[in-house]
Amino acid sequence: MNITICFERLDPAPWVLGLQQAFPEAAVSAWAPGAPPADHAIVWAPPQRFIDEQTLGGQTCDGHKGLQTLFNIGAGVDALLQLKLPPSLKVVRLDDAGMSVQMAEFVCHAVIRHFREFDGYDADTAAGKWSYRKPRSRADFAVGVMGLGVLGERVAKALQVFEFPVNGYSRSAKDLPGIRCFGGAQGLPEFLAATRVLVNLMPLTPETENILNKTTLSQLQPGAYVINVARGKHLVEEDLLALIDSGHLAGATLDVFRTEPLPAEHPFWRHPKITVTPHTSARTLREESIAQIVGKIQALQRGEPINGVVDHQRGY
Amino acid sequence: MNITICFERLDPAPWVLGLQQAFPEAAVSAWAPGAPPADHAIVWAPPQRFIDEQTLGGQTCDGHKGLQTLFNIGAGVDALLQLKLPPSLKVVRLDDAGMSVQMAEFVCHAVIRHFREFDGYDADTAAGKWSYRKPRSRADFAVGVMGLGVLGERVAKALQVFEFPVNGYSRSAKDLPGIRCFGGAQGLPEFLAATRVLVNLMPLTPETENILNKTTLSQLQPGAYVINVARGKHLVEEDLLALIDSGHLAGATLDVFRTEPLPAEHPFWRHPKITVTPHTSARTLREESIAQIVGKIQALQRGEPINGVVDHQRGY
Repeated sequence: MNITICFERLDPAPWVLGLQQAFPEAAVSAWAPGAPPADHAIVWAPPQRFIDEQTLGGQTCDGHKGLQTLFNIGAGVDALLQLKLPPSLKVVRLDDAGMSVQMAEFVCHAVIRHFREFDGYDADTAAGKWSYRKPRSRADFAVGVMGLGVLGERVAKALQVFEFPVNGYSRSAKDLPGIRCFGGAQGLPEFLAATRVLVNLMPLTPETENILNKTTLSQLQPGAYVINVARGKHLVEEDLLALIDSGHLAGATLDVFRTEPLPAEHPFWRHPKITVTPHTSARTLREESIAQIVGKIQALQRGEPINGVVDHQRGY
Repeated sequence: MNITICFERLDPAPWVLGLQQAFPEAAVSAWAPGAPPADHAIVWAPPQRFIDEQTLGGQTCDGHKGLQTLFNIGAGVDALLQLKLPPSLKVVRLDDAGMSVQMAEFVCHAVIRHFREFDGYDADTAAGKWSYRKPRSRADFAVGVMGLGVLGERVAKALQVFEFPVNGYSRSAKDLPGIRCFGGAQGLPEFLAATRVLVNLMPLTPETENILNKTTLSQLQPGAYVINVARGKHLVEEDLLALIDSGHLAGATLDVFRTEPLPAEHPFWRHPKITVTPHTSARTLREESIAQIVGKIQALQRGEPINGVVDHQRGY
């Protein structure tokens, strides 16, 4: 078995080591241009040349099948699917691998920070002021989670621990205990109208690009708050700014942006109602990711099905 | 049935109304000096005169039994027990009544804020800097909850949602699923040595006053973080400051203080490693509290036992 690793801006060495330890018989190496096709690849933002060479341009020839499986070390495969990929190539994304707990953590922190007005308390404290704020009612702060995959479902359940009313939205409505679920294009207006804090955890596909725009964000409850932890391209940034500045939206916590790193001149950096974080909500953890990929390769070797196989058409 | 309400710095009118609605036959009123003893009292920081008059100095005379039950609208009764109370007076504290979810919220927020270094990210964002920080391992961030009453147990369970290792400490060791429990004076050093983030939720009693001091705080793991959401008198403030300034402790989130409001000249206000909040971690919620007190009065009328009865000797 051959395993190749191809990362943009990330050292492959510890990954080569980890995979080699798990599969002592295999040939594990960091990819270099011109290398022969491997059986499995572990990638982050590989170049088109990598795909072309490893898949032999999608052609089966001379008895070598070319690359069988492409493991993406992240939950979102939108960038990968921008490449030309042979339809037969099995693309696998990480499912969880230590990311869902981080996402639950990030989102619960952001929701509580907003709901409990901790930024306001911090400002008062900085001014030496012992302040009183009337407690808000959590019944008024329904949180709506868009996207109910592994991450979205985990986030929704964590929010229930704090007794927020939780709504869920997905392409086809799911059935999750205690969560008011909505589905499809026809369910979106009702979901938005029932939501005070919007958490975006959708996959980025042609259907979901720009889904957070003037029309949809206007349908959120007055004073709504937006938390985007999926992809920058879900959000029409100027529409968000206009709705915050008009007062319809109370603010936003944004971890992802159309351009990353966020450009120096971008108005998000210093907007008083926007909290910016540098795409840090759920980081890929090496040990957990290697363990998951090893488990999946072993399952494939046994001929068993695995989770996280991407539907090229659907986009996730 | 007579119900009297005696609050320091809190309008009794909506409470009178709420109790009157629940018990239309009862005489419900705000206490005034000289008023005859009621059957039940709802209090917050009442004067000694209130106790003396309502309990007839502890004497049973002339067929009137004096006050039967004193409901304290908070979880901590330490201030109330500073008064001279007849030993036979049933003192009842709120158990939960919407406070435990707030406490779970406050503590999880503070733990995540510290663990995920959100203050550091905020500072970077304010400087227009897209920063990278190496993810920390949650295995290194065991959270130790001191005090496993209704609030402490709820907090400990909420922390488990985020996969932190959780330790628990109480007077006598408890048995809680997934929580490493310690008890008694002999269990304290081991509990502290196993703890990276300390959450104080103990009742304030003569035994626990000043329990967070140089000796105990020094036994926490290097780089430990302290969250005090119980009472200011648990903490020797100058010992905390010395251990933060020496580098043994990473910082603290403090919601309670020996003097409240925190005096203007206090060094906590502007200490860069201390987050101050104005005793807001778990606020008494009127509707929830009235509902709980009504339920308890009804149970007493049926001769049933109720939760939250304070052991005067034990102090909680």
